[in-house]
Amino acid sequence: MYSFKNDYSEGAHERIIKAIVETNYEQTEGYGLDIYCDKARSVLKKKINYDKADIHFLVGGTQTNLTAISAFLRPHEAVIAANSGHVLVHETGAIEATGHKVISVVVNDGKLKPCHIQSVVDEHTDEHMVKPRMVYISDSTEIGSIYTKSELIALKEECKKNHLYLYLDGARIGAALTSEENDLKLSDMPQLTDAFYIGGTKGGALMGEAIVICNEKLKSDFRFFIKQKGAMLAKGRLLGIQFYELFKDDLYFDLANHANNMAAILKKGIKELGYDFMIETSTNQIFPILPNEILEKINLKYEYSVWQKWDDRSKVIRLVTSWATLEEKVREFIDDLKSWSL
Amino acid sequence: MYSFKNDYSEGAHERIIKAIVETNYEQTEGYGLDIYCDKARSVLKKKINYDKADIHFLVGGTQTNLTAISAFLRPHEAVIAANSGHVLVHETGAIEATGHKVISVVVNDGKLKPCHIQSVVDEHTDEHMVKPRMVYISDSTEIGSIYTKSELIALKEECKKNHLYLYLDGARIGAALTSEENDLKLSDMPQLTDAFYIGGTKGGALMGEAIVICNEKLKSDFRFFIKQKGAMLAKGRLLGIQFYELFKDDLYFDLANHANNMAAILKKGIKELGYDFMIETSTNQIFPILPNEILEKINLKYEYSVWQKWDDRSKVIRLVTSWATLEEKVREFIDDLKSWSL
Amino acid sequence: MYSFKNDYSEGAHERIIKAIVETNYEQTEGYGLDIYCDKARSVLKKKINYDKADIHFLVGGTQTNLTAISAFLRPHEAVIAANSGHVLVHETGAIEATGHKVISVVVNDGKLKPCHIQSVVDEHTDEHMVKPRMVYISDSTEIGSIYTKSELIALKEECKKNHLYLYLDGARIGAALTSEENDLKLSDMPQLTDAFYIGGTKGGALMGEAIVICNEKLKSDFRFFIKQKGAMLAKGRLLGIQFYELFKDDLYFDLANHANNMAAILKKGIKELGYDFMIETSTNQIFPILPNEILEKINLKYEYSVWQKWDDRSKVIRLVTSWATLEEKVREFIDDLKSWSL
Amino acid sequence: MYSFKNDYSEGAHERIIKAIVETNYEQTEGYGLDIYCDKARSVLKKKINYDKADIHFLVGGTQTNLTAISAFLRPHEAVIAANSGHVLVHETGAIEATGHKVISVVVNDGKLKPCHIQSVVDEHTDEHMVKPRMVYISDSTEIGSIYTKSELIALKEECKKNHLYLYLDGARIGAALTSEENDLKLSDMPQLTDAFYIGGTKGGALMGEAIVICNEKLKSDFRFFIKQKGAMLAKGRLLGIQFYELFKDDLYFDLANHANNMAAILKKGIKELGYDFMIETSTNQIFPILPNEILEKINLKYEYSVWQKWDDRSKVIRLVTSWATLEEKVREFIDDLKSWSL
Repeated sequence: MYSFKNDYSEGAHERIIKAIVETNYEQTEGYGLDIYCDKARSVLKKKINYDKADIHFLVGGTQTNLTAISAFLRPHEAVIAANSGHVLVHETGAIEATGHKVISVVVNDGKLKPCHIQSVVDEHTDEHMVKPRMVYISDSTEIGSIYTKSELIALKEECKKNHLYLYLDGARIGAALTSEENDLKLSDMPQLTDAFYIGGTKGGALMGEAIVICNEKLKSDFRFFIKQKGAMLAKGRLLGIQFYELFKDDLYFDLANHANNMAAILKKGIKELGYDFMIETSTNQIFPILPNEILEKINLKYEYSVWQKWDDRSKVIRLVTSWATLEEKVREFIDDLKSWSL
Repeated sequence: MYSFKNDYSEGAHERIIKAIVETNYEQTEGYGLDIYCDKARSVLKKKINYDKADIHFLVGGTQTNLTAISAFLRPHEAVIAANSGHVLVHETGAIEATGHKVISVVVNDGKLKPCHIQSVVDEHTDEHMVKPRMVYISDSTEIGSIYTKSELIALKEECKKNHLYLYLDGARIGAALTSEENDLKLSDMPQLTDAFYIGGTKGGALMGEAIVICNEKLKSDFRFFIKQKGAMLAKGRLLGIQFYELFKDDLYFDLANHANNMAAILKKGIKELGYDFMIETSTNQIFPILPNEILEKINLKYEYSVWQKWDDRSKVIRLVTSWATLEEKVREFIDDLKSWSL
Repeated sequence: MYSFKNDYSEGAHERIIKAIVETNYEQTEGYGLDIYCDKARSVLKKKINYDKADIHFLVGGTQTNLTAISAFLRPHEAVIAANSGHVLVHETGAIEATGHKVISVVVNDGKLKPCHIQSVVDEHTDEHMVKPRMVYISDSTEIGSIYTKSELIALKEECKKNHLYLYLDGARIGAALTSEENDLKLSDMPQLTDAFYIGGTKGGALMGEAIVICNEKLKSDFRFFIKQKGAMLAKGRLLGIQFYELFKDDLYFDLANHANNMAAILKKGIKELGYDFMIETSTNQIFPILPNEILEKINLKYEYSVWQKWDDRSKVIRLVTSWATLEEKVREFIDDLKSWSL
Repeated sequence: MYSFKNDYSEGAHERIIKAIVETNYEQTEGYGLDIYCDKARSVLKKKINYDKADIHFLVGGTQTNLTAISAFLRPHEAVIAANSGHVLVHETGAIEATGHKVISVVVNDGKLKPCHIQSVVDEHTDEHMVKPRMVYISDSTEIGSIYTKSELIALKEECKKNHLYLYLDGARIGAALTSEENDLKLSDMPQLTDAFYIGGTKGGALMGEAIVICNEKLKSDFRFFIKQKGAMLAKGRLLGIQFYELFKDDLYFDLANHANNMAAILKKGIKELGYDFMIETSTNQIFPILPNEILEKINLKYEYSVWQKWDDRSKVIRLVTSWATLEEKVREFIDDLKSWSL
């Protein structure tokens, strides 16, 4: 069996493993105060071209979202998210468990637009309702789409106008920024968001997310929140070592680029066989619509997620590639699909 | 500089590193549903001799405590802890942040006794006060002391009598169970506690804690809580691999034993030089009282924690050893102390 | 100015005022443990024909909802509500502030149906999502509609099938049960819901809501939650006195009936003038669609709420009647509207 | 039976009852936006001599404390309170339920001093611990003692020095300010606290507390919190009417003075019979130490609270007087005690 089920099926890139092995017996400070975290923060600040950012390393995505949102908002303030947003549907109410409502906006492509924001703001008129205070977006989104620079600028302006923070979940920001349709750079983020995180878990690390706090008002006492939410890793250097390795050169983007390329080969191959897609994407997640009898054959050799029923005869599936996806397996999948589709 | 500051200064035991390296490119299920977590659960169940236990792997100690307590208690129910208890003082209000009061009991040796429990229960008489529902203990405690079997039995009986759950924080359970004064076994825990966790972070792993839920009533839906609290590691196998390695034979206890031995050498050496201790311990934490002028010399070569001021001329310090502590460094410390004490 | 803005503009029915005055200097127990609360519980149990119910008196509706829901659910469990549900939109995130997600279902008539429930349950498949555990409905709903007996039975069966509690917000249950289209009785509620509350604030009392817990599993320790949420009135007898007065005979229903009658006169009069309604209702809230130029005239003599814009020339407004609404004012409104509509 | 059990056994002062009756059929805005709340705010601002205060009316004490504290603090910030503090022991963990730790300081007289604050601040050194941010005091305290002006000034200065808010629970502020040992005025409070509340429930009202927010930083969005915590009374005018009546002249203080006088007579009488007291107080709560055999006789005619066991032969009891306490009953109690003590 070969898995296209997600982008966290394997361990970490060999350079990361090597760095962990080499530093194993060094004694360092705990809790993210070690020299490797410092070095990682330093190279990241250069990459984002924003020296004043506060950067912290946490372990996972849900953890990062709940820590950040509970640190940034007052109890009556709410988050606006697309109906596909990770904080809305796939975090077991983690945000609500910290006391905050997440307001859902129905969209088709995973992306929030200024009109959605305005509409939510207009509906929330007084103290009998929560106060919208943060817009949550993900790039790439949970269904593989990405924001263009002009879209993100428009969203940021809409946020500013309405006194809303813009928070970007970058669990797959590597895939977004290396997409061939992308015109954003990592260094755009400090201007276009109030805070964002760079995903390590899905980007070649064993685990780890780097939250970058850009807005001065959101910085204070963040380490208290990391600790309170159980997100402060004792051997914090593990996170620093990994992010340093990923960002001391372009490894992070090279790995994301590989994932995207693998997905592109899959997409092209499936398209050539005449199959449609639920959504057009240019990142490491694709959503082909395949007949049930074909899926039965795929099941014997490959793992993937069923996204939703399409009609009585077919389903939308999700295929995900990663830094570790083998090109030979991708090509084998296409060959198999071709033979099963004859 | 050599550090006796804590037991999480280094990475992980080489067998663990090796196992992570060897499995790096395998594709596994995410979120703790992989075969390595299964194998780790399997060997742990044998070690604790309780097949009906539910075992989950989380990343860190504060995280484990807050996830477990919020899963086990209803909102009006409270935890009883010693004034030195980790949940009470060193988790930035993590338990309160999930809505629960932690009731403090003043003790000198880090250990709760039945009389303390009774006293708290007696004071909480009606619905104007929280309802004590869980007793939190740690073994070894935050100041290195341990529970004897008869003490733990007595505590469990007191808890039963008062409808209280007994939860044991085993961040350093290895040090406790391999202490020369210990008469408890890991396999006693399912009978003597309702839930406990086995610490990996301080026991030779990169990170990770294994929570063992023994009481049937506490088991349901625990994975919802792991996810909600941001404690579900995407590449969960990392935790499984490590716990399997630690418990497939006696590695975990061997490493704890080493840590205790190193502390014993330190203790003996310091004692022979005529210094007193704040508390007598037999685990990997010792608390000598040293003159300020000696500490100034120690500062130049060694790292440690100042625990508290003792008098105007001396301080209590904490020296911690671990699975990774080098015997040569321990002996060097004693030699240095001897020469500085002349 | 005369107000049709809501059903809490005036004080309380004169019998209630009289009872409060007459008992003013009696000394009673505090916190709802007095004889008046006992008497009120006793008459209510007869009215609902369910002696095993637990009945508690709280001060307001949002308070009752948040206290009950946080007492009934575990932290990962969620509430399903219609998109017009009070807990969803008009309680400033009170439910989320206790940690629970409220899942929104889009409906047109304020009412949940079994198909909505099934659909939400089907979408929530694993521990990465919250666990739906309670269905929240209101009767009459926030837009004046009511449940029929067969609808409520079907909903309860759907809930049972899916292990969901059914909770009924009865802020306006009097208006529902005295509607001419109603076929439910107060004594049906213990069989058809797990818990419900009877609204006093909008039913002729100064303030107060009586929560009735029918499901045995939901009863334990409820008074702890009342206290913890700040909902335990020191002079609790004030609530008991009022509910006793309302339910020792049929005053509660007489008052609700009056409110409905006043709304019926308004509705008939407005209809006869040729105006449409956003929704057909038979309770004390009506939602006529009126031209902007007519509204400008109404504004000079009457208060009401603008519900929503209908088109460029007209708006939906909400007119609410109550136990205190004067028939002469109702008739005057109709006369005025007639003259303004010529 | 006559009750000295608490100061909320009766209804409200007749002037308050009269005002409620007289305004009963007026239609007013809901939720505290009516003219009576405005008038009450206006007279209160004059009494405190601080026009910039924000004043809100809530229903009860625990509710006011939890609403205020959750509005004023960020999630990692904690409250410092005396071990007898209401928020610490008698609110069923209401503050913790909003996520905040309450740090206990052991005192004998119910009062916090600067040294206590300093000591807590000194112990909380980093992000592994909560951040002390508010000092909670009550005046008069839960055991009847009061703060002098110099004590309160010193406390406020200590708070300023350590960036702590000073919050005063004035459930019994009337008793404090009319005590013969008092040198504080209501108009001192805006300078000496950041926020405080004036208790109506124990001061002659049916219910209600007026929170006065003095510190500009604490004012924003407070009404959102009132609503979110279920503390916003629909018929809010009930609170306004009562506070206006209490403060449009000196009724509030006259009533408190009466309560204190009644306690003084009790105290003098009991003292003359040779009994000791647990603590010397000059407010409406006294704590005599009485022999068990005397208490058995008292039990037949009077209600009171047993505070604690004193020794095998006697107990500390609490006698509370109020605005409604009858002088004849007070004298009768003394006469009875005299005859039983012969």
